[in-house]
Amino acid sequence: MKPFINDNFLLQSETAAHLFHDHAAGLPIIDYHCHLNPRMVAEDHKFRSITELWLSEDHYKWRALRSNGVPEHFITGSASDWEKFQKWAETVPYLLRNPLYHWTHLELKTCFGIGETLNADNARRIYDRCNEMLQSPEFTARSLMLRYNVEAVCTTDDPVDSLEYHISTRNDGFKVKVLPTWRPDKAMAVENPAGYRDYIDRLALVSGVNISSYSDVVKALRVRHAFFEQQGCRLSDHGMDEFYNEKFTEDEIEAIFDKVYGKCLEPSQEELLKYRTAMMLEFGIMDAETGWTQQFHYGPIRNNNSKMFRLIGPDTGFDSIGGCCPAKNMAGFLDRLNSQDRLAKTIIYNLNPSDNAVVAAMIGNFQDGSIPGKIQFGAGWWFCDQKDGMEAQMNTLSMMGLLSRFVGMLTDSRSFVSYPRHEYFRRILCNLIARDMENGEIPMSEMKRVEQMVEDISYYNAKNYFQF
Amino acid sequence: MKPFINDNFLLQSETAAHLFHDHAAGLPIIDYHCHLNPRMVAEDHKFRSITELWLSEDHYKWRALRSNGVPEHFITGSASDWEKFQKWAETVPYLLRNPLYHWTHLELKTCFGIGETLNADNARRIYDRCNEMLQSPEFTARSLMLRYNVEAVCTTDDPVDSLEYHISTRNDGFKVKVLPTWRPDKAMAVENPAGYRDYIDRLALVSGVNISSYSDVVKALRVRHAFFEQQGCRLSDHGMDEFYNEKFTEDEIEAIFDKVYGKCLEPSQEELLKYRTAMMLEFGIMDAETGWTQQFHYGPIRNNNSKMFRLIGPDTGFDSIGGCCPAKNMAGFLDRLNSQDRLAKTIIYNLNPSDNAVVAAMIGNFQDGSIPGKIQFGAGWWFCDQKDGMEAQMNTLSMMGLLSRFVGMLTDSRSFVSYPRHEYFRRILCNLIARDMENGEIPMSEMKRVEQMVEDISYYNAKNYFQF
Amino acid sequence: MKPFINDNFLLQSETAAHLFHDHAAGLPIIDYHCHLNPRMVAEDHKFRSITELWLSEDHYKWRALRSNGVPEHFITGSASDWEKFQKWAETVPYLLRNPLYHWTHLELKTCFGIGETLNADNARRIYDRCNEMLQSPEFTARSLMLRYNVEAVCTTDDPVDSLEYHISTRNDGFKVKVLPTWRPDKAMAVENPAGYRDYIDRLALVSGVNISSYSDVVKALRVRHAFFEQQGCRLSDHGMDEFYNEKFTEDEIEAIFDKVYGKCLEPSQEELLKYRTAMMLEFGIMDAETGWTQQFHYGPIRNNNSKMFRLIGPDTGFDSIGGCCPAKNMAGFLDRLNSQDRLAKTIIYNLNPSDNAVVAAMIGNFQDGSIPGKIQFGAGWWFCDQKDGMEAQMNTLSMMGLLSRFVGMLTDSRSFVSYPRHEYFRRILCNLIARDMENGEIPMSEMKRVEQMVEDISYYNAKNYFQF
Repeated sequence: MKPFINDNFLLQSETAAHLFHDHAAGLPIIDYHCHLNPRMVAEDHKFRSITELWLSEDHYKWRALRSNGVPEHFITGSASDWEKFQKWAETVPYLLRNPLYHWTHLELKTCFGIGETLNADNARRIYDRCNEMLQSPEFTARSLMLRYNVEAVCTTDDPVDSLEYHISTRNDGFKVKVLPTWRPDKAMAVENPAGYRDYIDRLALVSGVNISSYSDVVKALRVRHAFFEQQGCRLSDHGMDEFYNEKFTEDEIEAIFDKVYGKCLEPSQEELLKYRTAMMLEFGIMDAETGWTQQFHYGPIRNNNSKMFRLIGPDTGFDSIGGCCPAKNMAGFLDRLNSQDRLAKTIIYNLNPSDNAVVAAMIGNFQDGSIPGKIQFGAGWWFCDQKDGMEAQMNTLSMMGLLSRFVGMLTDSRSFVSYPRHEYFRRILCNLIARDMENGEIPMSEMKRVEQMVEDISYYNAKNYFQF
Repeated sequence: MKPFINDNFLLQSETAAHLFHDHAAGLPIIDYHCHLNPRMVAEDHKFRSITELWLSEDHYKWRALRSNGVPEHFITGSASDWEKFQKWAETVPYLLRNPLYHWTHLELKTCFGIGETLNADNARRIYDRCNEMLQSPEFTARSLMLRYNVEAVCTTDDPVDSLEYHISTRNDGFKVKVLPTWRPDKAMAVENPAGYRDYIDRLALVSGVNISSYSDVVKALRVRHAFFEQQGCRLSDHGMDEFYNEKFTEDEIEAIFDKVYGKCLEPSQEELLKYRTAMMLEFGIMDAETGWTQQFHYGPIRNNNSKMFRLIGPDTGFDSIGGCCPAKNMAGFLDRLNSQDRLAKTIIYNLNPSDNAVVAAMIGNFQDGSIPGKIQFGAGWWFCDQKDGMEAQMNTLSMMGLLSRFVGMLTDSRSFVSYPRHEYFRRILCNLIARDMENGEIPMSEMKRVEQMVEDISYYNAKNYFQF
Repeated sequence: MKPFINDNFLLQSETAAHLFHDHAAGLPIIDYHCHLNPRMVAEDHKFRSITELWLSEDHYKWRALRSNGVPEHFITGSASDWEKFQKWAETVPYLLRNPLYHWTHLELKTCFGIGETLNADNARRIYDRCNEMLQSPEFTARSLMLRYNVEAVCTTDDPVDSLEYHISTRNDGFKVKVLPTWRPDKAMAVENPAGYRDYIDRLALVSGVNISSYSDVVKALRVRHAFFEQQGCRLSDHGMDEFYNEKFTEDEIEAIFDKVYGKCLEPSQEELLKYRTAMMLEFGIMDAETGWTQQFHYGPIRNNNSKMFRLIGPDTGFDSIGGCCPAKNMAGFLDRLNSQDRLAKTIIYNLNPSDNAVVAAMIGNFQDGSIPGKIQFGAGWWFCDQKDGMEAQMNTLSMMGLLSRFVGMLTDSRSFVSYPRHEYFRRILCNLIARDMENGEIPMSEMKRVEQMVEDISYYNAKNYFQF
């Protein structure tokens, strides 16, 4: 019986195996969007246990545990590392067909060299073995990044962040580029006036700009944007429930700022949308001016379980997929930037897979011939970051746009062992394209072109597009 | 040439055949949601003809006949049983790729032992042969249920129903459990004040509760809920166009009741939504208190053909799929119950397959670790109850949740010969999982786990979940 | 190595090859919806170059070029025919998996006998060779239609059009039927009062009806509808962002007409929707009375790039897919016609594939048994007119309706060499059905029925349905 994670895992033909092994597997990883903690890189974090590595921050796994009937005590509660790992090991056999099943075994194999499938019976043995390895210097945060041939990662950072850990990592001479990403969600969070006031005061402090108006906010953000640029930042990222495209005047935005910041009053829904639209346009302009890439992650509904939100806070596995998108707002927002010649390189990620066609068609409206694939349909995100989701995204992109210009995979992960997801993606990509070749939908005579295309999507497109 | 409905129908690999024949085929059927007429069970109905059995109530077939150009006279009109069957037989060859084609031949084979494909040429012979068999005691309502190894069915019943037929069936010692399901749609149908008044008066009568306020309505419903509980009911069911999640006060709801019941005035749209929200929350609380499972079937648009509605009434094949769901309302409604610790076991069925991802992700927000799979994404419903729809539902559930904890198939049917749909589902399930094994996406070494998973989804998950 | 476009292109089994070669390939083409320029047929246009033939009007190719980083100068700008072709040839290798890749090579092969795949290296040679051939009489507009075995085409025409080219083509004795289609979008374009005034004045002129009220508009349109009928028109077509279903009174519509036409004032959004509803109902009635087929193409959002719209106008590759549809409006509109017994034969085309199930279920509500497949779910349109889109449309139609009654493919094209898309469709159809036969989902014993079904969908259903 072949081992589960074998050389040809997910590769269903010789063509697929050829494409993957000879053209994808060896390329470095550019993980252009993730949530790694930069401090853990700077301090070259050593993990106390596989529980810390795997289970301390992974809300995907937490959801799976809850769905399998495991009480919260063993998930985010005070159970011991071993108890938590044990519950996870008991749950794994119930995850067949879920991406966590593949990820878990890819990580066990590529990180720890363990080829068994995890379950209740072998849990203790595997736990002990992994923990022992984790104490060696080959398993620190930095060592893991090197082991997986990572060339660059882009973390997710607030404009007020000092970026001290990015700076010290770079000064250390760590050969993996650890770059910040501009994620200014809080700079437009006027729905919470008290929090906004605090935030703006911090922004004033770190930027050295005295803030008493909306235009001061923009000025201060520009100072920080320039600072991020100096630190190697080349991407922004925005988490949005939807695209905002309200009409507004500068006076209205100043008045909203005054109401929220000055008087600590909650804005109306209309004011909120106006403010967000104004800010998002400003962010877009900054990115266009610096040649950055802006990323839009839209469509979640968050903190749906208010009981658990009160108990353990946000980002704990209670977010979900919102309804389909208002395509007109998306088009209208992008058009406002484009009609000023200030539409930066852009990646749009939808959370609801029913929007795939909307996004795949949308990007075509704003390709301007300046560079290939200027506007991108982002890889399967979050709930869609799995085999079916990746295939659906790539198929729709193929049918309605140019797969060959796709900048490819990112992990979006907090974990230092999630890099095999790039391998996973590449296997799926190679298998998908190979299937078309086997079927005669792509001519075998184009093998050289296909090989280049696989290399491009795995690595070179991102390299050329982001220009780190 | 192999017969059409052969042992390995839909099973494309030896693994699929093994899983189905050795682990699924022999298990009993728990049909936990259907629309059987309990009187027909109580009276052990004998069918006068295959036309009665197949065509007298099946609006799926009626739609297909109309689509094939058959006049209404031969569908719901006064044509003879033979004429109606003849038209159906003529239509069957035009149904290739439609689930009715498979269902028809599965039923012919498993019920009547007929392996031919039905068409105009053999229609008379098959008609006569079936009708002859139907006169034998082996083809009564109860005999059919026994033949198909049915362990339990849950019918769909109004709170004011006496459940006399459930009771007499049980008292008869019929070994199949025929249990009621609480379906209180009419108890919140305030959009029709006259009908509502009649309904509430009947509710008062059967519950023995004097009703002059909304809180009396709730009291009376609680009496009936307890009665249903005594009769073995373990599920509720709600047919909804969407999830309701309005804010309201008790005073407002009392005022709406007074307006509708007291003054026989139509509620405004806002009042309607408030009333429905209030009622649905009450129903949810009752189910949580008794440990029942609540089912939400949402998303149809009904009676779209007003001409035919006037002629032949509702549920005659003129319903359709509504737009995508407001995910926020669904989340908000479930959260209101959950934040009071009163969210019962729940199954959500969407009609629009574009909502699959929304529902599959949604259920994860409310899994609380109390039991595995507490919140369920329901099997492909109505227009989605077909091979592609089932596969889509199971694939999305797999990718975003735990397929292994799925409670599986139900017929939702009015027919005593629709049980082969469980076989159909199990074949599709086994084939789907086997394909993953053949592809190496599920390791062959997990065969024992997979076998158990197939058994669980076919039978044991439902058995453990509903606890009849 | 097999040539790319070989006999069994897309046919993955012997069954598929049999169905295609013996039952689909030889049938004539009825292209019942296209955008051919009737003048080019009347004048038997000779193409100056393959650039004119391929690139002068094809906004699908323009989008692909822009996505590939080609500047506008080489797309719609003043670059030479050779330069434009060269850029296209350079782009083609980047189109792997996009339908343009298949279309391009099907056209090279079937029109010019060229079996190579186009790229930068062979661009000049292929360019010269095609251009040489285009100078021969075998490559004029009419010759191309004859070469592809076209029996009938339906162009897209405005009610005020003289149809002079249709008439002269018919009088010439050209054996391909070139029929007009009634596309009255401008007759309800009250959103632009000045343009509307001009349009109505032209309508008055060509119809000979003095127009001073809305009822005069209807009268004039009826005159033109009768004229189109005389010229062989059997279809109408409507481009809509959504289905309109407002309530209105005749007085309101007259008042809106007066406001827009009489006073040249912009209507409110509500007035706009009322006017459109009223007009669409009138058009539906006209079609019902004459036994025409009405087509609804709904769901695009257009001219999303306002900068490019200013530069090069509409229909230049900046349109996109709108959000999901309001199913209730669609049902309500169709029901208004149906309840008056004036619902004509109807084809509904959705642009957003997430609406597939809504449309497939919707058509079932209005099948009235008068003819098979009276209400049709249209073939994959525009962004969905590709292999995955066609398969999705046919699979959903199969599962929720009757594939066997489907009227099949149309090109929707401006091009005289897009007829291989019918071949493309037929290959996909045959492969899809053959796969079911190979899998045992359709019994092999039904081969005769399947053969007839393939012939019907390829040709006979359209022939019988439209009755040209």
